[in-house]
Amino acid sequence: MKPPSIIALIHGPDQPGLVSRVSSWIFLRGSNIVHADQHEDPEAGIFFQRVEWIPSGQIESEAAAFEQFASDELGMTVSVALSTDRPKVALFVSKIDHCFHDTILRFRSGEMAGSLACVVSNHETLADDAARYGLPFHHIPVTKASKAQAEDAQLEVIRSCGAKLVVMARYMQVLSDRFLKEAGCPVINIHHSFLPAFAGGKPYHQAHSRGVKIIGATAHYATADLDEGPIIHQDVTRINHRNAIPDLIRKGRDLEKSVFAQAIRLHLDNRILVYNNKTVVFD
Amino acid sequence: MKPPSIIALIHGPDQPGLVSRVSSWIFLRGSNIVHADQHEDPEAGIFFQRVEWIPSGQIESEAAAFEQFASDELGMTVSVALSTDRPKVALFVSKIDHCFHDTILRFRSGEMAGSLACVVSNHETLADDAARYGLPFHHIPVTKASKAQAEDAQLEVIRSCGAKLVVMARYMQVLSDRFLKEAGCPVINIHHSFLPAFAGGKPYHQAHSRGVKIIGATAHYATADLDEGPIIHQDVTRINHRNAIPDLIRKGRDLEKSVFAQAIRLHLDNRILVYNNKTVVFD
Amino acid sequence: MKPPSIIALIHGPDQPGLVSRVSSWIFLRGSNIVHADQHEDPEAGIFFQRVEWIPSGQIESEAAAFEQFASDELGMTVSVALSTDRPKVALFVSKIDHCFHDTILRFRSGEMAGSLACVVSNHETLADDAARYGLPFHHIPVTKASKAQAEDAQLEVIRSCGAKLVVMARYMQVLSDRFLKEAGCPVINIHHSFLPAFAGGKPYHQAHSRGVKIIGATAHYATADLDEGPIIHQDVTRINHRNAIPDLIRKGRDLEKSVFAQAIRLHLDNRILVYNNKTVVFD
Amino acid sequence: MKPPSIIALIHGPDQPGLVSRVSSWIFLRGSNIVHADQHEDPEAGIFFQRVEWIPSGQIESEAAAFEQFASDELGMTVSVALSTDRPKVALFVSKIDHCFHDTILRFRSGEMAGSLACVVSNHETLADDAARYGLPFHHIPVTKASKAQAEDAQLEVIRSCGAKLVVMARYMQVLSDRFLKEAGCPVINIHHSFLPAFAGGKPYHQAHSRGVKIIGATAHYATADLDEGPIIHQDVTRINHRNAIPDLIRKGRDLEKSVFAQAIRLHLDNRILVYNNKTVVFD
Repeated sequence: MKPPSIIALIHGPDQPGLVSRVSSWIFLRGSNIVHADQHEDPEAGIFFQRVEWIPSGQIESEAAAFEQFASDELGMTVSVALSTDRPKVALFVSKIDHCFHDTILRFRSGEMAGSLACVVSNHETLADDAARYGLPFHHIPVTKASKAQAEDAQLEVIRSCGAKLVVMARYMQVLSDRFLKEAGCPVINIHHSFLPAFAGGKPYHQAHSRGVKIIGATAHYATADLDEGPIIHQDVTRINHRNAIPDLIRKGRDLEKSVFAQAIRLHLDNRILVYNNKTVVFD
Repeated sequence: MKPPSIIALIHGPDQPGLVSRVSSWIFLRGSNIVHADQHEDPEAGIFFQRVEWIPSGQIESEAAAFEQFASDELGMTVSVALSTDRPKVALFVSKIDHCFHDTILRFRSGEMAGSLACVVSNHETLADDAARYGLPFHHIPVTKASKAQAEDAQLEVIRSCGAKLVVMARYMQVLSDRFLKEAGCPVINIHHSFLPAFAGGKPYHQAHSRGVKIIGATAHYATADLDEGPIIHQDVTRINHRNAIPDLIRKGRDLEKSVFAQAIRLHLDNRILVYNNKTVVFD
Repeated sequence: MKPPSIIALIHGPDQPGLVSRVSSWIFLRGSNIVHADQHEDPEAGIFFQRVEWIPSGQIESEAAAFEQFASDELGMTVSVALSTDRPKVALFVSKIDHCFHDTILRFRSGEMAGSLACVVSNHETLADDAARYGLPFHHIPVTKASKAQAEDAQLEVIRSCGAKLVVMARYMQVLSDRFLKEAGCPVINIHHSFLPAFAGGKPYHQAHSRGVKIIGATAHYATADLDEGPIIHQDVTRINHRNAIPDLIRKGRDLEKSVFAQAIRLHLDNRILVYNNKTVVFD
Repeated sequence: MKPPSIIALIHGPDQPGLVSRVSSWIFLRGSNIVHADQHEDPEAGIFFQRVEWIPSGQIESEAAAFEQFASDELGMTVSVALSTDRPKVALFVSKIDHCFHDTILRFRSGEMAGSLACVVSNHETLADDAARYGLPFHHIPVTKASKAQAEDAQLEVIRSCGAKLVVMARYMQVLSDRFLKEAGCPVINIHHSFLPAFAGGKPYHQAHSRGVKIIGATAHYATADLDEGPIIHQDVTRINHRNAIPDLIRKGRDLEKSVFAQAIRLHLDNRILVYNNKTVVFD
C-alpha cells in the first residue's frame, strides 16, 4: 500500500529558481517528493509543474499550506489534490453503448481515481444497463425547442450529485457555451476522428470518402467551439480499401474506448494542465 | 531466382464470373497464377483485380494477348507489366535532403523495381551529392515569372530521360495542372502531415499550434488540387508537449522517408489502382 | 442486408489451375464470388484459399456440393460454412474479469459471428456477473488431484451446450493434451506477452525484470505444448522505466482484450487456416 | 540559438531531499535549470536524475564544481557533460550497409550530438562509400584464429581516434568480454529482433519459422552475454503470412535504422542511465 500523497499542479510566469523553491519548501517541512516533472514553454514564457509528495505532517493542512505558498509567494496558479481523493464523475451518453460499458467497467475495476456518480442520457436505451451496474440514471430528453430547459435539468443533476467532472461517452448532443460555463467542472469528450481532420458529424463517413489509410480518435476538453477544445489524447489504427464504413465504425470503437479511458484516467490522476488551448500531460 | 512473371491490373464495371474468366484464360494457356487479389466496390459497382502469373509461352506476346482479352472481351481498363521491368524514375528535390538520400539508397540497394534516371532541382544544393551517386542533375530554377518556362524544361528532362514516374522528395514547388497533364506519367508527392489535417504550408507549425498528440506523413498522387490527390500511404508518430517544432521536424523526417519509400515501392510493384480520388492498394 | 453466402476454406498440395477450377465451378453454377483470397507457401508446396460466394441455388446443397468437389475432384482439405452460421462458444474464465466482460459485450453488440453458450470457471467469482448477462455459469473447481475429473466435467459441458469453439479469457489452468483432443473443437487462448518472449507464468514480471521497452499480448490456438500453439494475432504497447508491474498489468489488459477479441472474430468469420504450427489469416 | 548548458546524470542510494539539494545548489549559484527529470526505483532504493542548466559562471568550472558536490556531498555516482560536447564515435560495420548509410547521414545532418571519427570493418565492402563520406576506414579482418589480434587492432583504432562511443551498425562479429572492458567506452549494438525473443543468429528466420505476426528490433548496450545487455530502445512492425524471409529482412531494415539511430541519439544527448542490466531513459 502506497502512503497518501499530495499532488500539486502549478503554472504561471517562468522565473529563476522555481524548481528549487518548490522542492526546498517540501523538503524543509520534512516531506518526501515521490514524483516531480516540469515543463517550460519558452515561447509563452510559462512554467508548468506537477509535484507529488508524502507529507510528514497532517495531509490536509500541508496541502493547504502549499497552496498558499505557491499562490502567494510564487505567484503561480495552483491546484492541489490528495492521492486518496475520489472525485465524482457524471457520465453522459446517448444510445451508442461501447464507451458507456467500457468506462463503467474501468471504474468498477479500480483503474480510475474517481467514482461514477450518475448516468445522464437523452434516451432511455441504456436505463436498464445502468440499473444493472447500480448507477442512478437520469433520462433528460433533448429537442431543439427544449434544449435550454434540458441543460438546466442536466446542470441540476451535476450539482446535486456533486460531480467534479463530466465525461461524454459518445453523447450525441452539442453542449452550449452556457452549459460549459455553469457546469463548473471540466467536460471530456471523445471525438471519433483524428482531429483536426474530420471535425463535425459522421467522421467515419468523411474518412471513407476521402480515402485515408488510417483512422483515429481524439479525447479533448469540451469548449464552446465544437471539436476545437484542448486535445488530451489521440490514437489511430490502420485501414485499407476493403474496409467499408461498418468496418471503420467497428475498428473505431476500440480506439474510442481506449483513448477516452486514457484521457479520463490522466485527468483523475491530476496529470493535465491546460493553457493556450493545448494540454501539458505529465505521464 | 523467381522466374519472370506478368502482372496485370484491371478494373471496370463489375459483372458475374470475372474471377473465373480471368483465371481460366490464364490456366488454359498453360500458365500458372502466383498471386491474385481482387476487390469490388459495391457502391461504385467497380471490380478491381491484380493478377500475377508465370506464362508458359513467350512473355511479351502473352502479356499482349492478355491485354487484348481483358480489354476487348471483358471490357475492362487494363495495364500490364513484367516483373523484370525497371521503369525509369525522375527525382524532384529542392534543398531538404533526407528523402533524397533515402530514396536513392533504396534504389541502389535493389529494394525498388525501377531505376533512378535523373535528379531535377530548383536549387544547386544537392548537385554534388547527386554526382557522387552517379546521377544526372538538372538545375532548373523556378521563380514566379519563370514558372511556365521552368516547367517546359522539366517536361523536356522527363521526356528525354524516359521517366515513367516522377517522385517529389520534398520538392517545394507546386506543379501546375498543365505540367501534370503533359508529364504523361504519375507523380508521387510526400506531404508532411496526416492529410487531410494540416494541408498547405508549414504543417509541423500548424500541428504544434493546434496541440495534437500525434503527427503524420502522407504519400499521394499529385493532382491539380494541392494535397487533395489520391492517398497511397500514411503513417504517424506520437509527440508530446515537450516537443518543439524542431523535434516535430526531426521525428517527421523518419516518417516522411518511410512513407514516401513505401508508396514508391507499391507503385513500382504495380500494386496500386486509382479511382474516385482513392487508391486500391493490393499489398 | 447482405444475402447469405457460403465460405469455404481449402488447403492442400499446390497444383496448376486451382484458382481457375474453383472459380469456374462457382461461376458455372450461376453463383457470384464476393471474396476470394489465396496463398501459396512455396517451401511447403501448399495452396490455401478462402472463397466466399452467393449461391444461386439452395444454400445448404450448394455448400455440400462444393465440399464434395473440393475434396474429391481437387483432393483438398476443405471446410465449408454459411455466413448465417452462429456457432456456439464456451467461455472459460478464472477470477480476472477484463477479457470476460469485453468478450461478452462484443458478442452482445453483434460484433461476433457466433453466440456465447456458457461460462465455465474454476472459481465462483464471476457467477453473479454471468447471471446478469443471462449466461449459464458452470463452476468446476480444479485441483491437482481433481484435474482429470474436472476436465471430464468441462468436456461434458462443452458437449451438452454444443460448443464449436472454446475461448480461454485468462483461464489460469493448463488444459491437458487429452482435453484438447476430446474437446473436438479449437481452443483459443490469450497469453499476456509477445510470444515467444516471456512464455510461461507471470510474463509481466518477466518483462519488468528484463527491462524491455515494449510489452505485448498473443492470441493463439491452444496445443499440448503450453504457449507454443499457432499464433493468430499479436499486438504491443510501449512502456518506460517509470512503469512498475501494476502499470504493465493495466496497460496489458487493453492489449489482451483487443488481441483476444480480434482472434475470436477472425476465427468465427472463417478467416484462419492452420498448418505447420502457423496460421494463414485472410483478413 | 540555445545558450550552452551543463547536463548531469546522477544516481545512487535514495535519500530525502535530493531534488531539493540539487536544485538549490544550482539556484544558489545563480544558474537556471532548463530540464530536470528524476526517477526512484522503489525496489532497488535507487534515485536517478537528469538535470540540465544554464550556468551563470564559467561553464567548465561550474560543471566541475557540480561533479564534486554530487559526488562528495550527496554521495552519488555522477557524470557531467556540456551541451556543446561533440564526442567522437567509432562505427563498426561488416557488409550490410543500411544502418551504415543511415547513421552517417544522420550525423551529417546535425541530428546527433557527436561526430563520427572512423569506420572499422572486418570487410572491405564499404571502404569506397566511407571514403566518399570523407571518413577514415580501417579494414581489420577477423578470423577465429586472429580474433584476439584483430581486437587489439580495433582497440588501438578506438584509442587513437579518441572514440567515446562505439556503435555496431550490423557488425556481424561478437565482441569479447576483454574487448568490452578495454574499450573504455560504451558500445551500442542493434539486434534485429524484439529481444528477448529470437536472440542469437538469423532472427528473421526464427521469426518466420515460429509464425509470429509482428517483428522487431532492439538497440542495447553490448555486454559479454550476447543479446543480454541493457535494452535502450525497441520498435516493431506488423507482418503476415504472405511475408517471406526477404520481406521480413526488408521491413526489418527500416526498424533497425530508426531504433539504432534513436538509441545513439539518446546516448549522445546524455539521456540514459544504466543499472541492474536495465536503462532509465529520460526522453
